[in-house]
Amino acid sequence: MKIGLIDYLNTMPFHYDLAERLQGRGVGFTRGVPAQLNRALMAGEIDLAPISAIEAARHADELVILPDLGIASLGAVRTVLLFAWVSDIRELDGQSIALTDHSATSVELLKALCRERYGIQPQFHVTRQHLPSMLAEHQGALVIGDDALVEGTIRRALSSPHGWNMPYCYDLGDEWLKMTGLPFVFALWAARRDTAEALDKAGVFTALYESTERGLTEEARDSIATAYAGKLELSAGVCCRYLRDLRYRLTEEDLAGLRRFLELALDDFDWNRLCFWQRAAVAL
Amino acid sequence: MKIGLIDYLNTMPFHYDLAERLQGRGVGFTRGVPAQLNRALMAGEIDLAPISAIEAARHADELVILPDLGIASLGAVRTVLLFAWVSDIRELDGQSIALTDHSATSVELLKALCRERYGIQPQFHVTRQHLPSMLAEHQGALVIGDDALVEGTIRRALSSPHGWNMPYCYDLGDEWLKMTGLPFVFALWAARRDTAEALDKAGVFTALYESTERGLTEEARDSIATAYAGKLELSAGVCCRYLRDLRYRLTEEDLAGLRRFLELALDDFDWNRLCFWQRAAVAL
Repeated sequence: MKIGLIDYLNTMPFHYDLAERLQGRGVGFTRGVPAQLNRALMAGEIDLAPISAIEAARHADELVILPDLGIASLGAVRTVLLFAWVSDIRELDGQSIALTDHSATSVELLKALCRERYGIQPQFHVTRQHLPSMLAEHQGALVIGDDALVEGTIRRALSSPHGWNMPYCYDLGDEWLKMTGLPFVFALWAARRDTAEALDKAGVFTALYESTERGLTEEARDSIATAYAGKLELSAGVCCRYLRDLRYRLTEEDLAGLRRFLELALDDFDWNRLCFWQRAAVAL
Repeated sequence: MKIGLIDYLNTMPFHYDLAERLQGRGVGFTRGVPAQLNRALMAGEIDLAPISAIEAARHADELVILPDLGIASLGAVRTVLLFAWVSDIRELDGQSIALTDHSATSVELLKALCRERYGIQPQFHVTRQHLPSMLAEHQGALVIGDDALVEGTIRRALSSPHGWNMPYCYDLGDEWLKMTGLPFVFALWAARRDTAEALDKAGVFTALYESTERGLTEEARDSIATAYAGKLELSAGVCCRYLRDLRYRLTEEDLAGLRRFLELALDDFDWNRLCFWQRAAVAL
């Protein structure tokens, strides 16, 4: 059995002591960015992973979703950022926006905001995630994950068609909140339906919940932040604050935000097709 | 009769065509920052003004509040910003924070966040609002209004005890949201009880509501933003987006946020002491 892990700061609480808990149970790990794990999970190369919320919905029939567990934000998230040379997203109508190749959900979130909140139709181009290159050729650039945390914190000047400037920065968590009043769910933990029962029997789900529980204590967050900050060349406080502000235990409000998003982003979406893992039902 | 007006971008929609509507009705205008209007209203020098939400509560017995009208934000507000040399607000424990002399509510909001969300006790010093001077001598600086919009947009490097650096920036609208899940009400329109009836009879309240209604149309917002942007040396888009994201018509949710804040900030606060103007009752 294989578990996919993402090497972003925001997934560290999930892994906190997961490997130790699963030692000797025949579980391996694969690492990648969200878009890679989405693909690997669908291809059956891995059995369980934190995946883009929109991919969990697109492949609802093949997956079970772990309830209460995910990555959500109420308001500013700080790792899903649109950088742009224009001072209002509205001005991106007809303009070119470079989209990160790391993510599926964030891309659909940006598209939904352009359509529903701003009534604009930019031209979207998926590119390698590298802000300076993206903004050298495009009016806007969607950047996610650790890169976004760094760029949103240091706010450096970049080369634009009109010289060196600091781009404007839009936090899509806050944009979504302004439009809907709801939190946004970026990632969900999903397992393949054909192996979910085996994973549960091997204690993988329990280990994941327990590892996350421990990874979210203040002490654990501080140690994750301190260890990770050096890697990003950021202060530990930036990482600590970031982890503190995310929502890992999904509430009814988060699920309402998820549902609203999926209904906006997908044609003919049916919430009832999502299958949430119910341990009690299996135990019977 | 005298109306107090604030010369911040965010109050422009209220004044949009207020002066024209009130021409020939014996109404004069006085301008100032929120702290000045708070004082002038209590002193009876003016009869009606947009004032700090906390001052409206502190002087509840002398004032009537216009219902549904105010300035609120759900999430990031962009004009109530704490700048600091530390990467996590938590690190300001025992440190010195310079507080703007423009505002009462924002100061109390920061204090409530330090106490309730971060469990820290900084040393607060009210100073002239000027970010470079504030951060030259203090670890943190609370800046509001147009100055905050400018500093939060340009994000310039400033002189610190350790050389030139770009300070970290915390949006207190988002901080409040993360703590409570609620919007924050920054300003309310309040009239002195002893002149409220005369103001209403002269059509002042009606004119204010109508002027605001017109000032919030997309066309009006765009023209306000364009006119104001030059004054702040910002792009019109920054001003436009800012006006679009504020909430001027208060909902039940905004009032729940207001109540929560006043209960946290004031000892023995009693919501029922606030008197909201009821036109129907007066008409009877």
